[in-house]
Amino acid sequence: MPAIEKEIQDLEGYVLPHEGGKHLATIVLLPFRKDTWREEARPALSCFEKVIDAIRPFERVLLVIHPSFPVSLVTRFQKENVTILRLPYDDSWARDNTPIFLRKEEKLVGVDFGFNSWGGDYDGLYPDYQDDNLLGRRILLELRIPRHPRKDFILEGGNILSDGEGTILTSGECQLSKGRNPSLSQEEIENVLKKELNAKKVLFLPYGIFEDETDGHVDNIASFLDPGVVALATTEDKDDPQYERSREDLLYLQKETDALGRPLWIVSLPLPKPQYLTKEESLGLEKNQGVVERAEGRRLAASYCNFYQGKDFLLLPQFGVEEDKIAKQILEDYYQGRKKIIPIESREILLGGGNIHCITKEIPFSPLYPIEPEETK
Amino acid sequence: MPAIEKEIQDLEGYVLPHEGGKHLATIVLLPFRKDTWREEARPALSCFEKVIDAIRPFERVLLVIHPSFPVSLVTRFQKENVTILRLPYDDSWARDNTPIFLRKEEKLVGVDFGFNSWGGDYDGLYPDYQDDNLLGRRILLELRIPRHPRKDFILEGGNILSDGEGTILTSGECQLSKGRNPSLSQEEIENVLKKELNAKKVLFLPYGIFEDETDGHVDNIASFLDPGVVALATTEDKDDPQYERSREDLLYLQKETDALGRPLWIVSLPLPKPQYLTKEESLGLEKNQGVVERAEGRRLAASYCNFYQGKDFLLLPQFGVEEDKIAKQILEDYYQGRKKIIPIESREILLGGGNIHCITKEIPFSPLYPIEPEETK
Repeated sequence: MPAIEKEIQDLEGYVLPHEGGKHLATIVLLPFRKDTWREEARPALSCFEKVIDAIRPFERVLLVIHPSFPVSLVTRFQKENVTILRLPYDDSWARDNTPIFLRKEEKLVGVDFGFNSWGGDYDGLYPDYQDDNLLGRRILLELRIPRHPRKDFILEGGNILSDGEGTILTSGECQLSKGRNPSLSQEEIENVLKKELNAKKVLFLPYGIFEDETDGHVDNIASFLDPGVVALATTEDKDDPQYERSREDLLYLQKETDALGRPLWIVSLPLPKPQYLTKEESLGLEKNQGVVERAEGRRLAASYCNFYQGKDFLLLPQFGVEEDKIAKQILEDYYQGRKKIIPIESREILLGGGNIHCITKEIPFSPLYPIEPEETK
Repeated sequence: MPAIEKEIQDLEGYVLPHEGGKHLATIVLLPFRKDTWREEARPALSCFEKVIDAIRPFERVLLVIHPSFPVSLVTRFQKENVTILRLPYDDSWARDNTPIFLRKEEKLVGVDFGFNSWGGDYDGLYPDYQDDNLLGRRILLELRIPRHPRKDFILEGGNILSDGEGTILTSGECQLSKGRNPSLSQEEIENVLKKELNAKKVLFLPYGIFEDETDGHVDNIASFLDPGVVALATTEDKDDPQYERSREDLLYLQKETDALGRPLWIVSLPLPKPQYLTKEESLGLEKNQGVVERAEGRRLAASYCNFYQGKDFLLLPQFGVEEDKIAKQILEDYYQGRKKIIPIESREILLGGGNIHCITKEIPFSPLYPIEPEETK
């Protein structure tokens, strides 16, 4: 009795909602790669668990657990408001290797782009990514949500921000790089994004965060706090290579307008002081052929913009530095109690190359695709 | 990172424990076949849930959910003391299509026999049973329990009862039938059972229950209450075709001894009054090519011996007849408070062709193969 797979070609009327609305659930994939996550992923696993436990009071977590995990691990994560799926994947960046969900009234569709491990043969991070590339389809099948396939176009969810009102913000540094869709011009890429995300305007931010392994995903340097309001990661340290990058981005955003013709209100979020990989952290990683090496002293792409938000909450990365509190204060001042700002120590996720936004993916709310328990008869 | 599959050939020292000892968990598979379970398996599902909920206070349930179930169903069954695996199977008779677990001190092994849907081309109940046949291997891989393969020999767990002290009780009517291992003599079959279950003595009960679709599994007509003590389903109605069958079995058991040379103490469990499939029940079933048809008026193989027990509990089938209480009283008198006797209305399982014992499979306790949650670090 196999489930039936549905496809939708025509995206007329569908919208990529702003992340800060009501969700059906948040997708999270548990970490296991020993060459991404030090000490056999044990510290990362605890950090992911903190993220899951922070989301559970607000909305359901759709937790994907790799078949290689022992069954006792499945038991550990069978918690209230967690629904577990057991599917294969190569690494646990749900933002990037799960579908991008659009909504049209109550209907959902999962746009399923190609995934090549952040650059494929050109500068990808690991050589085997076929389970990642198939994950979107597998998840949609489980959820009975129709699929809109566009596997020939390489795009990670982490390089897309949407205001839910027709504007897509992406990083040109990443999306125009040779490791993505090198045969397409910027205009052609812009047209694909407009068509497949049903957007009216695409903004190409010049730069991401310095040394970001993703080639500079937009979600590590910016975020829509609301439609019309963009948080941008900045630094006042002119000696930091990030200084000029953030300044260029700021100048770009200041002169742009969104799909509705509004100028953008920019909220500056200071970066934490530079973070580096320690010797101990580097030694805890398995070294594998063809997988990016993470050596002692490497600059980590730490940024507060890599937060994750739902309707009533915002999970904010913390690095154990004094800027932590400043970032929290800025967001609290902005949201004025509309969302609970929840700080989470997330260096263990940062060591793997991302942060809280990178390991989460929202599914916009719809009553048509139930994940909550059916009523018992 | 695939899990590593281990095989064990030599069963020296391994024992098939008596069901009434401590378990690691009970395996249950949720029902879904519309041609086995009426009304798209909804009533059966609720009955399975009652069984699961009755086991949970005593031990963990390892619940296998077919990939075709919607994810909201997974959520519904994420309960305390339930660990969910999502694996394919053809029908939900865990007794028959999951491994038979032997134990040697703390080590476990799963003996993985061939499964042919209770008779294959000769008189099997459904034509496609490859997922059933592969289920044992898949479960062992999940649990990291080594496998002892013997796929060339057809045996269902429901045709095996063990006293845990070297005695195996099987039904000759079933095990010697043409739908199992027709090229082997009784002596050869006896030798396979001795070798693959590491048993010292095999008793072949002449008959199972009249009209039992399994060709008369032993677990529907008998059960070891303890080593040396056999419950046997009997009737005093000489007009019932079951009368002579049970009488032959009783005479056989009275003259036999077990592996330790003990004569067997027989506890007679009266059968419920004959039960028949109603028109409404029959009409609720989907009719499919090659699948056994269940017509109105068919005699159902109802028996109290199809109970399931653990160390501290015993789940007893109930049919809404006055014999229900008698069976309960007999077991309470026998166990004298050692086990809680829990009556469960189970006609919906009976309609599918079995009862509580048929939908459960115990894994003997061992600390080496954890299913309980790992400690959070």
